[in-house]
Amino acid sequence: MNFRSDNESPAAPEILEALQAANAGHAYAYGEDEITSRMKGRFRETFETDLEVFPVATGTAANSLSIAQLAPAYGAVFCHHEAHLHADECGGPEFYSGGAKVIPLSGDLAKICPRTLQAAVAKMEEMGVHESQPSAVSLSQATELGTVYKPDEIREIAGIARGREMGLHMDGARLANAVQRLGCTPAELTWKAGIDILSFGATKNGAMAAEAVVVFNRERAMGLARRHKRAGHLFSKMRFMSVQLEAYLKDGLWLQLAERANRAADALSAGLGRLGGVEILYPVEANEVFVKMPPPLADGLKEAGYEFHLWPGSRDHYRLVACFATRVDAVNAFLAKARQLSDGLP
Amino acid sequence: MNFRSDNESPAAPEILEALQAANAGHAYAYGEDEITSRMKGRFRETFETDLEVFPVATGTAANSLSIAQLAPAYGAVFCHHEAHLHADECGGPEFYSGGAKVIPLSGDLAKICPRTLQAAVAKMEEMGVHESQPSAVSLSQATELGTVYKPDEIREIAGIARGREMGLHMDGARLANAVQRLGCTPAELTWKAGIDILSFGATKNGAMAAEAVVVFNRERAMGLARRHKRAGHLFSKMRFMSVQLEAYLKDGLWLQLAERANRAADALSAGLGRLGGVEILYPVEANEVFVKMPPPLADGLKEAGYEFHLWPGSRDHYRLVACFATRVDAVNAFLAKARQLSDGLP
Amino acid sequence: MNFRSDNESPAAPEILEALQAANAGHAYAYGEDEITSRMKGRFRETFETDLEVFPVATGTAANSLSIAQLAPAYGAVFCHHEAHLHADECGGPEFYSGGAKVIPLSGDLAKICPRTLQAAVAKMEEMGVHESQPSAVSLSQATELGTVYKPDEIREIAGIARGREMGLHMDGARLANAVQRLGCTPAELTWKAGIDILSFGATKNGAMAAEAVVVFNRERAMGLARRHKRAGHLFSKMRFMSVQLEAYLKDGLWLQLAERANRAADALSAGLGRLGGVEILYPVEANEVFVKMPPPLADGLKEAGYEFHLWPGSRDHYRLVACFATRVDAVNAFLAKARQLSDGLP
Amino acid sequence: MNFRSDNESPAAPEILEALQAANAGHAYAYGEDEITSRMKGRFRETFETDLEVFPVATGTAANSLSIAQLAPAYGAVFCHHEAHLHADECGGPEFYSGGAKVIPLSGDLAKICPRTLQAAVAKMEEMGVHESQPSAVSLSQATELGTVYKPDEIREIAGIARGREMGLHMDGARLANAVQRLGCTPAELTWKAGIDILSFGATKNGAMAAEAVVVFNRERAMGLARRHKRAGHLFSKMRFMSVQLEAYLKDGLWLQLAERANRAADALSAGLGRLGGVEILYPVEANEVFVKMPPPLADGLKEAGYEFHLWPGSRDHYRLVACFATRVDAVNAFLAKARQLSDGLP
Repeated sequence: MNFRSDNESPAAPEILEALQAANAGHAYAYGEDEITSRMKGRFRETFETDLEVFPVATGTAANSLSIAQLAPAYGAVFCHHEAHLHADECGGPEFYSGGAKVIPLSGDLAKICPRTLQAAVAKMEEMGVHESQPSAVSLSQATELGTVYKPDEIREIAGIARGREMGLHMDGARLANAVQRLGCTPAELTWKAGIDILSFGATKNGAMAAEAVVVFNRERAMGLARRHKRAGHLFSKMRFMSVQLEAYLKDGLWLQLAERANRAADALSAGLGRLGGVEILYPVEANEVFVKMPPPLADGLKEAGYEFHLWPGSRDHYRLVACFATRVDAVNAFLAKARQLSDGLP
Repeated sequence: MNFRSDNESPAAPEILEALQAANAGHAYAYGEDEITSRMKGRFRETFETDLEVFPVATGTAANSLSIAQLAPAYGAVFCHHEAHLHADECGGPEFYSGGAKVIPLSGDLAKICPRTLQAAVAKMEEMGVHESQPSAVSLSQATELGTVYKPDEIREIAGIARGREMGLHMDGARLANAVQRLGCTPAELTWKAGIDILSFGATKNGAMAAEAVVVFNRERAMGLARRHKRAGHLFSKMRFMSVQLEAYLKDGLWLQLAERANRAADALSAGLGRLGGVEILYPVEANEVFVKMPPPLADGLKEAGYEFHLWPGSRDHYRLVACFATRVDAVNAFLAKARQLSDGLP
Repeated sequence: MNFRSDNESPAAPEILEALQAANAGHAYAYGEDEITSRMKGRFRETFETDLEVFPVATGTAANSLSIAQLAPAYGAVFCHHEAHLHADECGGPEFYSGGAKVIPLSGDLAKICPRTLQAAVAKMEEMGVHESQPSAVSLSQATELGTVYKPDEIREIAGIARGREMGLHMDGARLANAVQRLGCTPAELTWKAGIDILSFGATKNGAMAAEAVVVFNRERAMGLARRHKRAGHLFSKMRFMSVQLEAYLKDGLWLQLAERANRAADALSAGLGRLGGVEILYPVEANEVFVKMPPPLADGLKEAGYEFHLWPGSRDHYRLVACFATRVDAVNAFLAKARQLSDGLP
Repeated sequence: MNFRSDNESPAAPEILEALQAANAGHAYAYGEDEITSRMKGRFRETFETDLEVFPVATGTAANSLSIAQLAPAYGAVFCHHEAHLHADECGGPEFYSGGAKVIPLSGDLAKICPRTLQAAVAKMEEMGVHESQPSAVSLSQATELGTVYKPDEIREIAGIARGREMGLHMDGARLANAVQRLGCTPAELTWKAGIDILSFGATKNGAMAAEAVVVFNRERAMGLARRHKRAGHLFSKMRFMSVQLEAYLKDGLWLQLAERANRAADALSAGLGRLGGVEILYPVEANEVFVKMPPPLADGLKEAGYEFHLWPGSRDHYRLVACFATRVDAVNAFLAKARQLSDGLP
């Protein structure tokens, strides 16, 4: 059983079926097709507002394009040091923006601390032209440690951003998990809380490969269509991207898939937390469980065929990720095995 | 019936089936899966050499990444002025390379004239540091006018490139059509003729969305893995990209699909060429037919539901594109209609 | 005697004296000094308007920064194919803009033809997102062939630019020569005719090394201060740049220097034009003379110690450039030698 | 008296005289002149090795060009978080490199700690293509806190860099001060210790505006001439840049000027250190004194006409910078005033 990452999960059957259905004859290219129109409508419905959507191949592309819209080449973007934007995109945002600076901040539970943000922005502004221009803030929702920002927390950061004419981006690679967990509407968690541009993720939660840049603040969309094209993310057979996103949003599928993942994570967390010598490191607010456990226990589980990552830089912190396809019986079997191994440890 | 572009065609059933089959459980992300290994092996077999393959979302990405590998930011790349690279990528190569110059050249039948190339390179070199460094040449195979470069023609250009330490790129968005038409091996048309990097296209010829950068000259691959990632083209669920390419190459499917498209283009060309006042503009060497016809004839066909493009900048030059899914009976019906309309014209 | 280029001339004595005088004790860095304030005032007076000035080290920097202000990374800038911007900056504009496309246009006497411009812009717009966004036009004043745009000609091009929301740039590396020749005011030749940003050149006409980006349209100045800094053109000891520009503009020195250069060019042109087999190729409207002459005549002059360039790509077209330091007696001696040699030719 | 920064100092008289002398008639442009040849020879002599020199307008340009030579767009460069490269160039290195990441490290006395460096590089390497490629390390000599790296310290860092095929850069904006202080040869402090590329500063220590990129490792010079040009730092009237550098190196002028600055800093440090409530914060190893003093004392000195900076982010840390033009009597007067004010404080 693979608990390594939700990006190693399969595609949801509903999405593959939709793909199959979309393959009927010719369709206009580059998004001029009907499926793409429908998909856009679905986004507007889901987020209860007018908005623009640009499907892209990967989360790296979504994040990098978003940042290029918010930060000029001479700008700076602030994010948590754990953020993908800073630590996992191989400089994608720097590339797309033409050399903007990504400024990593510290903060508990992988969330940006408003005071830290304010101080970092103020320090940069004091330098005038000798430093980049504070231009954007980026939040990961859910965060890299499986926690989530509540609407109030987002609003507080949005207030700081707005006061400095900075844009606010959300990396929503796991947005579905956060929305499902918080029980608020997608709108409440994004534009109503001050988000200008969203990286909307579907791949980790059931799509084959479909992410999107969603622009709530239309003033921020200038030039995006051309950036999208020249970066190589304007698909000719766009319908096959669009149909994944359409099916994902249809009838709340995305939240149902997320619910399965979140429930599985809860079960993992509850079960592991009961074992001696095991500690759940952070609140499980999405579909990831970070757990401190004795390496012999981890090794035993791996030998039994369970896969999960040791957290980089640590010796006994492990990450387990659930997904829509994680079956309840698999979780139970895993926990039974863990209990058995744990009992056998000195 | 849609003769507008082969990028408006559906996906081949074989490819959708392979996708379905690939959706079994978890698989390692970012290309560490078995399907990707198999796909790479298939490329090496097909091209009869060791090589590196990087799947990407679009042809724009394949071309732009390829150019960034061959031309430094202070370099220049030479191509025909009709080439996608210059005229249809919204500056993708300039973006990926960090500002290399794309130098458009003239030449009959959308092919680079070796003498023109030599003169342009020499003129640039004469300028020393006041001009960019001649770094690469890019050929479109098939060309934007539906013609093809023969191996000897490629070799001649490769000779010029090599003499100046320039790299040679092939935009193979329609490579299958060219290989099928010329009856030579993929190797003969690429690395054996001097190609360093190939944009391998599958989308126009049956894939859902799958292109690849193929590097024959491994010295030219340095840094490509990271460029690929930061541009947002390293798919997490890579298996779904890889399986399209694998199925495409398996048992010669790509050439069978191309043959259908080429045959349909031949039939269109033969039928239209027989009509009065109609002129086939260029040799039909792939799956595209460029035809001069009286606008009333074109209008009549459009009214009858046939779709095709007026060539930009012209008043009576039209392009018809066939694809693997173009049925023989549809072509016959189209030609019958054309004959009927043509007979009725004054 | 050197007629190769005005950029091989010395600095004017007035400018060196001003430099010496500026070297009194400490002064605030990065342009916070009094000389810089005075220099800015002098620019505002000279151009009779409020404006912003950013001194830079070279004309390449002035042009590249200007273009980066007018064209986004996904934009295109149109210029004559002889323009420095396209042919002599080693891709500087592409670098500074993050990969904008520079589109070379044809046109008589190295001037952009309005109709050609209009057609090129229209063709690009038709391509939508598949091509870059038409964003700027750049004029060289004087042109690379020593001709000048009259205010009406600039206004016509400005009209086209404005209709498409494109910015208008002037490469004024030899602006002084044009202003002096046309007898109009600097304002009439720039912002009053529709110029948004000017590359103001002083180096070729008496400065040691001082050029400036002058922004008339303040909306176009956003971010320029930071681009200027990060490109390495914000001098710490700015006063030494500023004082060159201040002295250059003071009491009309720049136009007096230009007048000497223009008069010398006139004398060269008049004298050479009288020789048999010699043809003045273009109107001499600044300080450059393009002349067709028998190579033996050119060779004889070179043997006699006169230096000038054969025009790239030609066999008997030569360029002679006069400057403020070209003495009347040197011109007379040159012409006497030319007459003597010409008389001796078969 | 101005103790704010050595970049607010005047030019040394010897350098202005050399400029005056260089202004004799025409000279070939773009570095083809004799003065430039002589200047290059002087660099080779001074550093006792073959090398390449590219004069540039500012330290920002020298640093940014150097980094672009060492780090590809997908690379990362490590430096101390106080380094100009990271904190004062408005993203210049990111711009010139096309989006390389600058990774700030901690370390005492503004010097990179080898262990910290090693850990940061190892962590990045572990991420594979998900992170940038460790490509370069940059040292500031002297550092931003007025300390210096000894040859052994540089060698240790060079060893780490070399083991990972990373390049080693030195920001030598105050190299003269370090060389003078350490009493070693310029070679010992640079290439003999493992430096590949040096930003050679002259502006802070007597030049009007002259810095240079010095490449010791010729393999690292590829493409630099064109980068230099397209960034707008290839001066047409190069002789005026070159002559400043030539005069600066001639007869050891640069070290004599640095000695004056260092001695003045020593005197400041010694005098201030004797006052009650005043603390010298770091060893004075170049020409900068960082001092903690009661704000009323600082205020009194400022009222008396002495200028110096409060260190950003602090309430009672001040920086005083001496330069070649700081007179002994001015230092004495300043110290007398400080003593008088200090005695009067409660």
